[in-house]
Amino acid sequence: MKDRFLRACRREPVDRTPVWFMRQAGRYMPEYREIRARHSLLDICRSPELATIVTLQPVRRIDVDAAILFSDLLLPLEPMGIPFDFVRGEGPAIENPIRSEADIDRLKCFEPREALSHVLEAIRMIRKELDGDVPLIGFGGAPFTLASYAIEGGHSNNFALTKAMMYSNPKAWHRFCDMLGSLVGEYMRAQVEAGVQCVQIFDSWVGTLNSADYREFVFPHTKKIFDLLETSGVPTIHFGTGTAAILRDQRDAGGDVIGADWRIPLDEAWERIGSDRAIQGNLDPTLLLAPLDRMLSAADEVLRRAAGRPGHIFNLGHGILPTTPVEHVQALAHHVHRYRLAHV
Amino acid sequence: MKDRFLRACRREPVDRTPVWFMRQAGRYMPEYREIRARHSLLDICRSPELATIVTLQPVRRIDVDAAILFSDLLLPLEPMGIPFDFVRGEGPAIENPIRSEADIDRLKCFEPREALSHVLEAIRMIRKELDGDVPLIGFGGAPFTLASYAIEGGHSNNFALTKAMMYSNPKAWHRFCDMLGSLVGEYMRAQVEAGVQCVQIFDSWVGTLNSADYREFVFPHTKKIFDLLETSGVPTIHFGTGTAAILRDQRDAGGDVIGADWRIPLDEAWERIGSDRAIQGNLDPTLLLAPLDRMLSAADEVLRRAAGRPGHIFNLGHGILPTTPVEHVQALAHHVHRYRLAHV
Repeated sequence: MKDRFLRACRREPVDRTPVWFMRQAGRYMPEYREIRARHSLLDICRSPELATIVTLQPVRRIDVDAAILFSDLLLPLEPMGIPFDFVRGEGPAIENPIRSEADIDRLKCFEPREALSHVLEAIRMIRKELDGDVPLIGFGGAPFTLASYAIEGGHSNNFALTKAMMYSNPKAWHRFCDMLGSLVGEYMRAQVEAGVQCVQIFDSWVGTLNSADYREFVFPHTKKIFDLLETSGVPTIHFGTGTAAILRDQRDAGGDVIGADWRIPLDEAWERIGSDRAIQGNLDPTLLLAPLDRMLSAADEVLRRAAGRPGHIFNLGHGILPTTPVEHVQALAHHVHRYRLAHV
Repeated sequence: MKDRFLRACRREPVDRTPVWFMRQAGRYMPEYREIRARHSLLDICRSPELATIVTLQPVRRIDVDAAILFSDLLLPLEPMGIPFDFVRGEGPAIENPIRSEADIDRLKCFEPREALSHVLEAIRMIRKELDGDVPLIGFGGAPFTLASYAIEGGHSNNFALTKAMMYSNPKAWHRFCDMLGSLVGEYMRAQVEAGVQCVQIFDSWVGTLNSADYREFVFPHTKKIFDLLETSGVPTIHFGTGTAAILRDQRDAGGDVIGADWRIPLDEAWERIGSDRAIQGNLDPTLLLAPLDRMLSAADEVLRRAAGRPGHIFNLGHGILPTTPVEHVQALAHHVHRYRLAHV
């Protein structure tokens, strides 16, 4: 097995900087679009066979050092009693958003090994298909990001409803997030039991909060997930965007690896995170829409700022965009692997 | 005239911290909604009488230390040859977005004193109506933010098309932004001639860039606006959101006052900006949806971090949200004025 990804998570020296991409299975690939032409996003998430096929697509085409389970952050919402769907071109739509304490009263706890058994089955199938080639990353949504979808009813620009609940009814907010933290933590443990070799917690939208609000409203619930994963034996990644001002708080909440986006230079981000953690990032995904030479020189800049220090996993600052040329993703992975590390 | 706002812009001691709010004239006010029920947003912007009425509404109701011209950032796009409209609930929509060099070739320069004379007429009317009560702020969009609307065709989450042009065709990008910088600079000078006593440049979406890209693609064009304003004799404000990582670059581009949003504590932001500039901010606008005591204690925290140092203008980190209770805006302005400054 290519072990550079897991070694980097543990800050052990590696022969080459490991690389994988958020949304490495996705609409930029013709073979993915072919499947999506016949199946909805939720169909793929709910079918272990389809999820396996799609998860493996980038592993066959791109020289990545890890596979990531094809799934969606929102899956745990449905068995909680928050059904949703994906509206073409508009992202997730939640039929009955959470707006009151009564809405929270109605929510159900669930056993992920039953309610989300299809995901665990997909993990087992993917592990078999990968046959030890590269490690498999599992993932889940962090409480803030999940709660924001559930409360706003979909994507939001200002998170006004989410923050209004947070500030106006902290008791309800904490109850909801505590529930989300417990469920996601247990779901992540179930993913590890099924075979994932690393877990990434996506707190994609938490960068809308400042440090004080993060500490009060998010920290205990996200920390709970990492605490629940502590005995699982697999490394964990803690990801967010726009987090320049809260990287230290996220580190304190947990994660062997902390994600940083392109808004902050990698070396500055690593300094804030601390040298006792690994770092993942941080190329702007829009650079993959640029001419090859600009993309590669920007990648070199990221690698240069990592200074060959063990513990850097190359990735984008957010997911691959649908209009990205496949050849650019391929060229980028090759380029990262060709980069000569100072310590080898 | 209440002069605390202009004094604070110049970092002179004030009796009370001056306060005004972005979007202080807006949908949260019943009297504004009444006018909007009969007139479109563009109708109001194009009618000096209506723009005057709406600009004055918050000055009559809320204890603010400045009025801000009611207008829209996008107005200069139309006379350049980029028509647009506002789609209810969806924000601006540009019919033919700028996507190629040929699109830029077709653009026209214009004389703001002719093409936007209705705005200048509104300024003269507002100054007359204000009768020296509070100073009047004019404003314009910064090249990056204006270009992003023109290229994306409206709001964007990832600015993929904008950055794709920036990276793939820097020549075209710089030509477009140079044109925007010159036109907005001249438009701002025309606003000053017509009577505005301060100018705020909105680079609302520039926080999506990192420092290196800001320096290469934005800095010279935004700087040009501030350079053009240098001899105008009025103080200037430079505003953006999500800018924790580029505050120093924005300061170098210009502005007597630099805006900071809620994601970074005010004192940290001021340290990055430097003590030779004033600062504006930085309460999270969603806090106005919170219970009064939480809103006020968060405001105290902002004031405390300003440490009574001359040069702080209290504002939100972005515009007032449409669902904000008017009484909260009133209470906040009163509260800021009651805060006892250390240096008086």
